[in-house]
Amino acid sequence: MNNFNFYSPTYFVFGREKENEVGKYIQRFGGSKVLIHYGGGSVVKSGLLDRVKQSLTATGISFCELGGVVPNPRSGLVYQGIEICKKEGVDFVLAVGGGSVIDSSKAIALGALCDGDFWDFYCGKRVEKALPVATVLTLTAAGSEGSTGSVITHENGMLKRAANSDFLRPVFSILNPELTCSLPAYQTACGATDMMAHVMERYFTNTKDVEITDRLCEGILLTVINEVPKALVDPDDYEARANLMWAGMVAHNDICGVGREQDWSTHQMEHELSGLYDVAHGAGLAVMFPAWMKYVMMHDVNRFAQFAVRVWGCEMDFQHPEITARKGIERYEQFLTSIGMPVRFSELGAKAEDIPLLVKALGLGERTLGFFVKLTEDDVRKIYELAV
Amino acid sequence: MNNFNFYSPTYFVFGREKENEVGKYIQRFGGSKVLIHYGGGSVVKSGLLDRVKQSLTATGISFCELGGVVPNPRSGLVYQGIEICKKEGVDFVLAVGGGSVIDSSKAIALGALCDGDFWDFYCGKRVEKALPVATVLTLTAAGSEGSTGSVITHENGMLKRAANSDFLRPVFSILNPELTCSLPAYQTACGATDMMAHVMERYFTNTKDVEITDRLCEGILLTVINEVPKALVDPDDYEARANLMWAGMVAHNDICGVGREQDWSTHQMEHELSGLYDVAHGAGLAVMFPAWMKYVMMHDVNRFAQFAVRVWGCEMDFQHPEITARKGIERYEQFLTSIGMPVRFSELGAKAEDIPLLVKALGLGERTLGFFVKLTEDDVRKIYELAV
Repeated sequence: MNNFNFYSPTYFVFGREKENEVGKYIQRFGGSKVLIHYGGGSVVKSGLLDRVKQSLTATGISFCELGGVVPNPRSGLVYQGIEICKKEGVDFVLAVGGGSVIDSSKAIALGALCDGDFWDFYCGKRVEKALPVATVLTLTAAGSEGSTGSVITHENGMLKRAANSDFLRPVFSILNPELTCSLPAYQTACGATDMMAHVMERYFTNTKDVEITDRLCEGILLTVINEVPKALVDPDDYEARANLMWAGMVAHNDICGVGREQDWSTHQMEHELSGLYDVAHGAGLAVMFPAWMKYVMMHDVNRFAQFAVRVWGCEMDFQHPEITARKGIERYEQFLTSIGMPVRFSELGAKAEDIPLLVKALGLGERTLGFFVKLTEDDVRKIYELAV
Repeated sequence: MNNFNFYSPTYFVFGREKENEVGKYIQRFGGSKVLIHYGGGSVVKSGLLDRVKQSLTATGISFCELGGVVPNPRSGLVYQGIEICKKEGVDFVLAVGGGSVIDSSKAIALGALCDGDFWDFYCGKRVEKALPVATVLTLTAAGSEGSTGSVITHENGMLKRAANSDFLRPVFSILNPELTCSLPAYQTACGATDMMAHVMERYFTNTKDVEITDRLCEGILLTVINEVPKALVDPDDYEARANLMWAGMVAHNDICGVGREQDWSTHQMEHELSGLYDVAHGAGLAVMFPAWMKYVMMHDVNRFAQFAVRVWGCEMDFQHPEITARKGIERYEQFLTSIGMPVRFSELGAKAEDIPLLVKALGLGERTLGFFVKLTEDDVRKIYELAV
């Protein structure tokens, strides 16, 4: 097991109607002037935004607001948010939405306390402070409600880049599974795919003997596999939504990733895909992850056999572990199809002839991508080709 | 799934030689005058205490010290510690040891900031403040390094009682698995038994459909079951010690317990046992848990069948789930025996004729104990009898 630090200080408030307590928690965590940040009309139409505002008003907390976050959130709105924060003396950013809204809020929180360009932090500059961010989560997927990460797409070139820091962990997150019951099937499935990917980026590792995180990873994957079909059959299944919502958090606050080298190459390959075509991140992952698996499987066939046996219930072929390993990948792909996810470029609207563009956008040059197998530009190209 | 709050803000520093950084972390978390609290001679003999002091001195942090914590830590030493803190102006308590030392440190941290008797908080008074506590963990078992709890035995009547509060979560905990390699086999096995019990107190619940915590519980149990025999065969097996050390934390910081009613009756029955006979807590749990299981099994035979199948690899008898359920309990008992744990009163030095004393000490009267099955005084007596 590798040495590690683990720090997950977010206060989670989970359950029915908990969004009505948001004012109390902002007060407890020291906020007095809040920027409410959100996406499109759904939080307005559903009345959620009103309930949040009522709770703030009832607690005597003043606020301003900025809507309009889109999936794969853009830098333009972040710059707007930063300007509002500086002008209005905002001391707390409240994200009401899903991963995109939270990521955009984190970027604003970062930029509000720096003089230069917030984008520098998405190009490797070390984060040293940020306004406190809190969330009222409406979409189970990204895990951003409990994670250190934020992913933003810069409109100048559609570059999609990530920043990571303990300063970006939300101070509190309100998770009410009821708010996710209105999610369309496609978004629910995209969310589940994203959660599974967060686990698998940690699961496929060269670090030996980290059984505790292996087992936690497998537990989260089994939960998502069992619960997402229930939520697709009955969108109002509170228990399924609740299990998925908490699974999404533990999939990405790193409790299932400590002590081991992690990979993350598939996320980066996907970022170029959804950056270029503006497709849902989960859908892009559904296309890229099986392709990556097929390409790297023989690097550690026993790890893929473990994945097949423990997660997909395959029987172990002790004479030919590669057959078991391959079955696991097949089962994963079949599962993705069964929940309505694309698994090929064509289903996504992506084109084989754009592969050189995607490879170039990664900007690898002589560098490699990922850790399970260190992928060269040539490897990456072949993986994109496997996804066609 | 039940509504819940989850808050685990402890900063974990995990890995080889990390105790040498303790000064840096005390500084980061605002300590300037530290009480170092520890147990017997082992931390002195091993040189650990000296290394900790060197780290504090190198960072310019002043300290006083108090050793002498015993297993099932006593109120007497807590009173002494509180007096030292008040007299010396201590602002930070550092536990160097296992669960007993940490629990004693938490009690001191509590008492140092209150005018009355610290024991009131162990009799139900609400905790509202405490000095910050940090730990350098030397024994994997209690999970106190990441938990809200502290258990103290009052010398006046040998009453063993618990206090729980977010204020008692350590601000940071240093976990170096190397420090546990010197643990004797018996203590290693006691620790593993304790961890498993922490999980099982959460696992056996009447709350339906909390698959995510079920799966995490099962993952932790599987890890302990697979890793503890390795540590018994080769005490210096770093990987086994590391897995056990982190499993002990996740078993008890409540990540595997949220969203569900928990039981905790076995812990309370055991507290009376180890309070009366001063036996190791883990050994007492090894005797009491199988007895409790046998008594309550038919309350939810399918849950026990799930335990048998998923944790112990039993084959499901679909026609007679109770046979599977019983097999799971048998396998658990056999496992305990295989790692050198007692499973009967006699092996523990406990006597059947003391059962009325044990029942009386619980002081149930008309109240009931636990939640999976609400146990009356009569139930409790029968469970103790099953353990004879």
